[in-house]
Amino acid sequence: MDKFYVIKIGGNIIDDEQKLNTFLKEFASIKEKKILIHGGGKTVTHIAEKLGVQQELIDGRRITNSETLKIVTMVYAGFINKNIIAKLQATNCNAIGISGADGNAVLAHKRKHVNQNIDYGFAGDIDEVNTGFLTALLDLDITPVVCPITHDKKGQLLNTNADTMANEIAKSLSHTYHVELVYIFEKAGVLLDMDDEESLIKKLNRNEYKDLKEKKQIFAGMIPKLDNAFAAIDAGVQTVRIGKSEHLKKILTGGSGTSIVND
Amino acid sequence: MDKFYVIKIGGNIIDDEQKLNTFLKEFASIKEKKILIHGGGKTVTHIAEKLGVQQELIDGRRITNSETLKIVTMVYAGFINKNIIAKLQATNCNAIGISGADGNAVLAHKRKHVNQNIDYGFAGDIDEVNTGFLTALLDLDITPVVCPITHDKKGQLLNTNADTMANEIAKSLSHTYHVELVYIFEKAGVLLDMDDEESLIKKLNRNEYKDLKEKKQIFAGMIPKLDNAFAAIDAGVQTVRIGKSEHLKKILTGGSGTSIVND
Repeated sequence: MDKFYVIKIGGNIIDDEQKLNTFLKEFASIKEKKILIHGGGKTVTHIAEKLGVQQELIDGRRITNSETLKIVTMVYAGFINKNIIAKLQATNCNAIGISGADGNAVLAHKRKHVNQNIDYGFAGDIDEVNTGFLTALLDLDITPVVCPITHDKKGQLLNTNADTMANEIAKSLSHTYHVELVYIFEKAGVLLDMDDEESLIKKLNRNEYKDLKEKKQIFAGMIPKLDNAFAAIDAGVQTVRIGKSEHLKKILTGGSGTSIVND
Repeated sequence: MDKFYVIKIGGNIIDDEQKLNTFLKEFASIKEKKILIHGGGKTVTHIAEKLGVQQELIDGRRITNSETLKIVTMVYAGFINKNIIAKLQATNCNAIGISGADGNAVLAHKRKHVNQNIDYGFAGDIDEVNTGFLTALLDLDITPVVCPITHDKKGQLLNTNADTMANEIAKSLSHTYHVELVYIFEKAGVLLDMDDEESLIKKLNRNEYKDLKEKKQIFAGMIPKLDNAFAAIDAGVQTVRIGKSEHLKKILTGGSGTSIVND
């Protein structure tokens, strides 16, 4: 099977133009098939504040009301996505920016909640990734850049977590490719001590993860990310790698960051 | 040669959800190959006002400064484009929303002006349409929906007139297809009296147009649109049709609106 990189970048790179430019140049130079998934960044919050759109919170979670959905669609699918595409085109990487609605790439449904009296808004949980469409683009030598907006095929756009989007795309592609899922992150990888990059865990399998969790040596904020990573491995993804944008090329070969493996 | 429809809609439909829904259903039901190009609408002005972005004018023209470019990219490529895609997917029309940067679809350069001391901003004049990319999407049975943002392949996005975008795409495709270029408009077509839809000119060739212009019977605001239409005909486009969104199907057969022809 051919190698395939599914790479996710978050707000900390998107908000830093210098970091983003450096990352995109490295990304463009990857010879293998690849997909980029990007998250948001601070622009959504800035614009929501300026437009006077209230950020609703229920149980500490931000709710995607219709005004917020409008802003995330503008910022993710418009501003961030098209700027990334223009920058990639400048490096001769022929890229196309898509949401889950484009080409029916990622189908989702509006999140249902236990408490029927609370509407958590336009959050989308993924049902299906249209790998045929993604591979058709790749066969045209066009690299997809995916923003975390999905649709329900009934005309409704939905806001979807970018990590989940990357995970689901990686899992779907793992039936036909040797997939490496890469989370680009603000830290050097999984650290035993969040303030000490020397405490990096270079390789982590399920048993080691279980041990570290039991000893409470894994930072609580990392647990959902790592649970998702192992779920991706279970579903057929070969390796999940986590590391800093500056070290992309090294991360891909296991020379930097944390590699999450099956053995 | 196969028939190919290049259809452009403007702000008056985009701002009216009912009209847009009806139009998109009709558009989706067109059996032939087709591309939709959309303009802006009032959202850009609304958001610019709310964000406190000054609309600069030079000689009465709106200037695309960097803040305005950010807003048009958000609104055209994000909000409007993705909403159209979600609506088309709901009618089983598999569509993809693109800017000129995606797949390097439409290459442009920053407009140069006679007066070198004035910077007219990030306005893009089109150099090349990548018809190979557009037809590759169509061969996958995916209908492109194009927003009027282009790029210069040096990393810069540019704001481009949607009528011009439609014109240039139609002209490029006319080498391989029998292209009909359709401008969906707020009026029933070219009218001798702007307030009387009964005064519709059903068919217009170059000589008739010249006559009407000399007699000053063509409304001044229509002249650039009609000059562009005849330029498209000169470049190989078969017919240009202008009419109202409600009559789309009839316009395509010449049963409504104005048909601009070569004979």
